[in-house]
Amino acid sequence: MKHIIKSQQLDQKLINRIFALATALEKKKSQVLKGKIMASLFYEPSTRTRFSFESAMIRLGGSVITTENAKEFSSVAKGETLEDSIKVIGNYADVIVLRHDEQGSAERAASVSSVPIINAGDGAGQHPTQALLDLYTIKRELGKIDGITLALVGDLKNGRTIRSLSYLLGKYKNIKIYFVSPIGLRVGEDIKIYLKEQQTDYEETTDLFSIVGKVDVLYQTRIQKERFATKKEYEKFNGCYTIDGELVKKMKIKSIIMHPLPRVNEILTEVDKLPQAVYFKQTYYGLLIRMALLKLVIKL
Amino acid sequence: MKHIIKSQQLDQKLINRIFALATALEKKKSQVLKGKIMASLFYEPSTRTRFSFESAMIRLGGSVITTENAKEFSSVAKGETLEDSIKVIGNYADVIVLRHDEQGSAERAASVSSVPIINAGDGAGQHPTQALLDLYTIKRELGKIDGITLALVGDLKNGRTIRSLSYLLGKYKNIKIYFVSPIGLRVGEDIKIYLKEQQTDYEETTDLFSIVGKVDVLYQTRIQKERFATKKEYEKFNGCYTIDGELVKKMKIKSIIMHPLPRVNEILTEVDKLPQAVYFKQTYYGLLIRMALLKLVIKL
Amino acid sequence: MKHIIKSQQLDQKLINRIFALATALEKKKSQVLKGKIMASLFYEPSTRTRFSFESAMIRLGGSVITTENAKEFSSVAKGETLEDSIKVIGNYADVIVLRHDEQGSAERAASVSSVPIINAGDGAGQHPTQALLDLYTIKRELGKIDGITLALVGDLKNGRTIRSLSYLLGKYKNIKIYFVSPIGLRVGEDIKIYLKEQQTDYEETTDLFSIVGKVDVLYQTRIQKERFATKKEYEKFNGCYTIDGELVKKMKIKSIIMHPLPRVNEILTEVDKLPQAVYFKQTYYGLLIRMALLKLVIKL
Repeated sequence: MKHIIKSQQLDQKLINRIFALATALEKKKSQVLKGKIMASLFYEPSTRTRFSFESAMIRLGGSVITTENAKEFSSVAKGETLEDSIKVIGNYADVIVLRHDEQGSAERAASVSSVPIINAGDGAGQHPTQALLDLYTIKRELGKIDGITLALVGDLKNGRTIRSLSYLLGKYKNIKIYFVSPIGLRVGEDIKIYLKEQQTDYEETTDLFSIVGKVDVLYQTRIQKERFATKKEYEKFNGCYTIDGELVKKMKIKSIIMHPLPRVNEILTEVDKLPQAVYFKQTYYGLLIRMALLKLVIKL
Repeated sequence: MKHIIKSQQLDQKLINRIFALATALEKKKSQVLKGKIMASLFYEPSTRTRFSFESAMIRLGGSVITTENAKEFSSVAKGETLEDSIKVIGNYADVIVLRHDEQGSAERAASVSSVPIINAGDGAGQHPTQALLDLYTIKRELGKIDGITLALVGDLKNGRTIRSLSYLLGKYKNIKIYFVSPIGLRVGEDIKIYLKEQQTDYEETTDLFSIVGKVDVLYQTRIQKERFATKKEYEKFNGCYTIDGELVKKMKIKSIIMHPLPRVNEILTEVDKLPQAVYFKQTYYGLLIRMALLKLVIKL
Repeated sequence: MKHIIKSQQLDQKLINRIFALATALEKKKSQVLKGKIMASLFYEPSTRTRFSFESAMIRLGGSVITTENAKEFSSVAKGETLEDSIKVIGNYADVIVLRHDEQGSAERAASVSSVPIINAGDGAGQHPTQALLDLYTIKRELGKIDGITLALVGDLKNGRTIRSLSYLLGKYKNIKIYFVSPIGLRVGEDIKIYLKEQQTDYEETTDLFSIVGKVDVLYQTRIQKERFATKKEYEKFNGCYTIDGELVKKMKIKSIIMHPLPRVNEILTEVDKLPQAVYFKQTYYGLLIRMALLKLVIKL
């Protein structure tokens, strides 16, 4: 494994290896990447993701060179291709973390790069490290992945996070997924076809209330206002999926609430202190996953 | 002391401790913050302040993750609260240096943060590390704070620096302050009430020339053009408080001229080489103060 | 040598010393700048150049504080002079790498700075580290500089790179330069006068095809669309100097193709894999040159 580009690369064996390494790096501090340089090459801003990778690199003893607005600033403005930029930066860094607004860009970068590329989101495409940290959160919090029941809630049509996580879940046994969304924002056919092939049980519903007591994982996502025809329709659905203290009372005591963040008002802050709320812890698990990935791809 | 939020936190005992630590760190190099990460979270740009903190962190062996335009770039744009951002970044860093445009934001951040927050300016609110470095400059240059006479000059109504420094000066004995400003830009009533309570002697005047020979510290600030009704009025006052070589000749030989910088033309460059000019040295003292504060708040 | 400001500073003895150091630092890793801080002070963006310097600093064990948009962000917006900014930042860093849009700015910065200034491009002025890395690339790839024949191709009127390189080449023996450009974009008279003084042989031509078989170095540059009166004229010349596989077949087998990058379409990507193409390697040599310069100027 040289590059981390898409979820399809990741089989269960590799996922287990990454998880084991993440847990090991939490227990025992390591300066294994001392002397190594990571370039953060972000063509669209994502301070949260960038900080997560940079913190991971530094925690392992490495250093960082960074740009948070590569699109506006770099020689891209002069007409340079991504491929050329990657070839040049490969002389300055030992790994490149790439965030780009075009689907497929990470794969193009990897095809010419002399150093490992980690895809930190390529447009409507993939964000494989987010999917990995989501799965790792489930593993850490519930102790297992096989056999769990999940509700994936919100804009399932456009949500990159939900798509990538569904893909990884298809590799596990006895999973039950409830896709909870407004009718116009249902999950794509490709995901449903894939899950059928994997014999993963799923159900689609618009009614969160009726299934919330059955799930081990309630994965909430932000409903994006701009996707709706009218403000009224937006508010109807948005309000309908709001997670508040009352809803959480209907959940199993050992269940967990996840969210990729940022959160607006789809989870009320009153939920933050409840034992089910793990969405901030999720970002901590993300740090461990990114430490593991950096260690795995950088040649030592 | 976990967070550094406002001048009101700082009593003389704590101030002395910070000053002693700053001086000790100047004399003896230390890598005490090795392995620690500081996040610079700047919602409005301030390259000078950011560089000062980042240099301080690195000089103590620590590392930095940084954003100089958090407002535009981060998930704030998607509607995330400052509180959520702070909870997430607390997983990536051991201390957060926060610059924000809203008064009270540093206090809000501190109320939810798992790691220390240092306020690097919150709008019209506080900038406690600036006030500390100003006081430290006086201590280092004059050898004492008790018993000194100061002229605080310029826009005293809007100047955050002047307000915070006045607050700290109120804790010392036998201080005499001349507030020198245009009538429309006089220091706020709250500061005057506070100084009366502290039995600190002060006087208001529009005439710098008449008192400049009496002071140990001439603290100049920039008069902001946009505060005046007419350009003519601005130029009248601006010109009137310009510090030039002639004015400095009337000052005591052992007195000092301070300025929070940036300076435009309210101190002529001909003054830079005079022995009274300490405004660039002030930025060096600021580095030492920030080193001391970082060491104090980060758990080792 | 305290500052690196312009090519005119560099005599052959110093150039040889820099090259020897660059080669030595490639062979033997060094942490000689541990504990030192470099400030990247970029008033106009240049991610490529910035990353090159920052990687060089980190590879030598040093640390970096950085701004990629100093013009918009810093106190310059409040009216501060470059000189004041430099005096302040000199308290936070051990070396300042300055990129500025005004010719002569690096010299102004150096005149007041307490720490070394390295000019990373000042407007239409100089970019001495680029010229050095170009020359070093020739030395490394051809084994010598004396006696070589070069074609410098493209917009020779406006190209800063070509001007600086020509200046350095004038110091070497038995050099032959072909200046290849559209008539309206010929190299400046000052360069031609200088080369005559140095007794360096040069020729001007519009015809790349006729001389390409004679050269050891084909130095291609980007023709900037905006310099031409009509789009038609631009396309005529632009197309005319495109380097493709066919043209390279006419070149000597041991010759090299250089380019300061970014490249748009003036070298086709089919050329990248040919043995003559060294333009990506050039950026690697640039890293070594910048390591050498940082080591030379920083007081240890």
